[in-house]
Amino acid sequence: MVFGFVNKENMSLLTDLYELTMAQVYFKKGMNKTAIFDFYTRPVENRSYLLNAGLEQLVYYLQNVRFTQEDIDYLRSTGYFEEEFLSYLKNFRFTGNLYAVEEGEFIFPDEPVVQIEAPMIEAQIIETFLINTLQHPILVATKAIRCYSVARGTVLIDFGLRRAHGTDAGMKAARSSYIGGFAGTSNVLAGKEYGIKIFGTMAHSYILAHKDEVQAFKDFTLQYPENSVLLVDTYDTIKGVYNAVKAVKELGLKHFKGIRLDSGDLLKLSVEARKILDAEGFKDAIIIASGGINEYKIKELLDKGAPIDGWGVGTELVVSADLPYLDCAYKLVEYDTRPVMKFSSKKKTLPHKKQIYRIYEDGVFKKDIITKFDEKVENGRPLLKEIIRNGKPVYNLPTLDEIRQKALENFKKIPDELKDINKTVHIKPEISRSIQKTIKKLEEEYLKGAKK
Amino acid sequence: MVFGFVNKENMSLLTDLYELTMAQVYFKKGMNKTAIFDFYTRPVENRSYLLNAGLEQLVYYLQNVRFTQEDIDYLRSTGYFEEEFLSYLKNFRFTGNLYAVEEGEFIFPDEPVVQIEAPMIEAQIIETFLINTLQHPILVATKAIRCYSVARGTVLIDFGLRRAHGTDAGMKAARSSYIGGFAGTSNVLAGKEYGIKIFGTMAHSYILAHKDEVQAFKDFTLQYPENSVLLVDTYDTIKGVYNAVKAVKELGLKHFKGIRLDSGDLLKLSVEARKILDAEGFKDAIIIASGGINEYKIKELLDKGAPIDGWGVGTELVVSADLPYLDCAYKLVEYDTRPVMKFSSKKKTLPHKKQIYRIYEDGVFKKDIITKFDEKVENGRPLLKEIIRNGKPVYNLPTLDEIRQKALENFKKIPDELKDINKTVHIKPEISRSIQKTIKKLEEEYLKGAKK
Repeated sequence: MVFGFVNKENMSLLTDLYELTMAQVYFKKGMNKTAIFDFYTRPVENRSYLLNAGLEQLVYYLQNVRFTQEDIDYLRSTGYFEEEFLSYLKNFRFTGNLYAVEEGEFIFPDEPVVQIEAPMIEAQIIETFLINTLQHPILVATKAIRCYSVARGTVLIDFGLRRAHGTDAGMKAARSSYIGGFAGTSNVLAGKEYGIKIFGTMAHSYILAHKDEVQAFKDFTLQYPENSVLLVDTYDTIKGVYNAVKAVKELGLKHFKGIRLDSGDLLKLSVEARKILDAEGFKDAIIIASGGINEYKIKELLDKGAPIDGWGVGTELVVSADLPYLDCAYKLVEYDTRPVMKFSSKKKTLPHKKQIYRIYEDGVFKKDIITKFDEKVENGRPLLKEIIRNGKPVYNLPTLDEIRQKALENFKKIPDELKDINKTVHIKPEISRSIQKTIKKLEEEYLKGAKK
Repeated sequence: MVFGFVNKENMSLLTDLYELTMAQVYFKKGMNKTAIFDFYTRPVENRSYLLNAGLEQLVYYLQNVRFTQEDIDYLRSTGYFEEEFLSYLKNFRFTGNLYAVEEGEFIFPDEPVVQIEAPMIEAQIIETFLINTLQHPILVATKAIRCYSVARGTVLIDFGLRRAHGTDAGMKAARSSYIGGFAGTSNVLAGKEYGIKIFGTMAHSYILAHKDEVQAFKDFTLQYPENSVLLVDTYDTIKGVYNAVKAVKELGLKHFKGIRLDSGDLLKLSVEARKILDAEGFKDAIIIASGGINEYKIKELLDKGAPIDGWGVGTELVVSADLPYLDCAYKLVEYDTRPVMKFSSKKKTLPHKKQIYRIYEDGVFKKDIITKFDEKVENGRPLLKEIIRNGKPVYNLPTLDEIRQKALENFKKIPDELKDINKTVHIKPEISRSIQKTIKKLEEEYLKGAKK
């Protein structure tokens, strides 16, 4: 596998060695009682909310993770593993429960976005993949809806495939940005596999390959009369706009899709381009902007009145440039019915199997309350859904369009204060008294132990 | 493909729509003469050099990219493509030439790291994948060798799989960080597929699952007497060190591998832990640090005398946190023997098929000179190698260990000034007079045209 492709056949090994070495100890000691793990994020500096995404991929993984003979043979060769444990792995299946916040819901720090309840060994082995498959979609969906939140109805397209961190990130970015309110992607494979609408314009190389800019525009417009967005900044942007107009007129067309600006002062250039297009009779030709676009630039340009109709958002979206990783964790909160927590430094965890209840006031998000799983909160909407029970799916995966719709509906319920992209509000969930009681009890026990 | 796996069968569609729509115009107009494209990076604020990586994956792609019937059927369904062009795609192969700087070489901005010479349609269609497959490996290899540059012989391990942007990024990160001087990875699949040494310690959950920290340490050490790195910070770090010692002593062992610190004041804790380990007779037990590690923290801790023997470097490495993307491009520089360049804003390109000559003085890098491909520079080491000729490989891919060795050898030749991780030196290649002449000529032609 010179290339590094990860597929159904080898994804079980896409894990950290320690998951397997710990699992072997559990196996040998018979420590395979039910464990509960939380996946959650910690507060970050420049996000007031996160948009949840990536669950569908996790469900697929949990239903399909297997160790093949080739995997087993490799593990044997490392010298870490005994035959008895390798035999166990050969029949490894995920037989536990998955509770999760649905894709398209907004989430906040310290909330269990995903909860795994499974025999200890299974819950441990899946850790690395689980975090890997969730983090990036959440980052991109969140960055996307931040763009959406300032786009005022202008169109957002994912142009980021080339700058995504590898092939899988390119696919995840297309899917996640769609959930976050994007209209489509330039990624053809994402179009095929996810049914996302695909978009495209043209490259500078296309213009350069022609000796004449007008001819380049004519060739393209003739081939795609309904879909020609002409890239005008290869030589001189304003001259490019005139050349676009000239090309369209020479073809005898009354309409064309529009132009793309990819460099320079986008405010000034879009204003000038709009004037030219209008004066030349192409009032319905749109202006697409690209090149280093993010939510801050979209807001600034629209605030200043830039007549831009759509955005190609690439690099900054797919790598979530101002937040390229989440401080997220997958932590044990209960083992064999015993609630547990970590005490070191500030990274405390919340013990117990839990539920999150979301409280609204006048249709707007007010707060989240985290309770033990079987507690009820009046007027609270429970966020954790049962997705897999005893290894079997018990949840109908929504379509991607349903998820997107849900995200956009939920977005309306976010308080305005949280929507300010230049400000960070740290939302803290309320912790139920029952959980607080356990925390106190565990702290007392720990302090007693520490005195020994 | 609910999951988003990209594999040999569908990687051809992992491209931007515009590559294919432009290709169809070229096809229809018979514009399929030889094109030359450069892949290069632009200057960035916090890197004085980049370490090249990712070429092997590009070679694989170029030799294997095909459009399957399923791909063709999808493309037909989009309404963009005519049957004649779809038939062309069915037989699509890369038949051109690939010139590239080898993996393990250092590269600088504005240098053609990869040069494609191929019929226009082929050169265009491969663009998106080419950039996608090269950018992330270069980012991670560079981040890795920056860590290596300040590690003073301490051991570096890639712990980043969980925080990488998806599955492919996790694999690329393991491979690229190994090239950049890391000793291994926690990523088991990377161990299997790339033959990289795998490492692991234990998780906090493992300690929490036991009622007693000492018992947890004993179980693990008994199972892996040669490979127990005990995680000591679940409850109280210093107490954890004593518990590690206690566990090892209770097992009657004279040695154990070491401990891991994952939180808190790593300087203070490592000094205290070292004292305890030494005093208790475990002078050869190592101290591994993890948790938010990057080159800046490694340097700071080692400068202050922290007795840390090894580092688990995760998130910051695999997402290249302080530089999560490269400003890189793939630009047409010649079409049908006609040199071309883009003039807009500051993003100028260098026309012609080129060579890079590296000049050393007293065994230390002095400068790079970029010339036309067939020029010679005395005492210059040519960096662009012919990798694929007419679609066929003409280069023996080195092993990963050979690449790593080359990177570490080359690193010795980097001037000290460039190695300062807190400073950025912008190295500019010298451009040969012959290329400068072409630039001048193209600019004059362009200005003449602009006056029209």
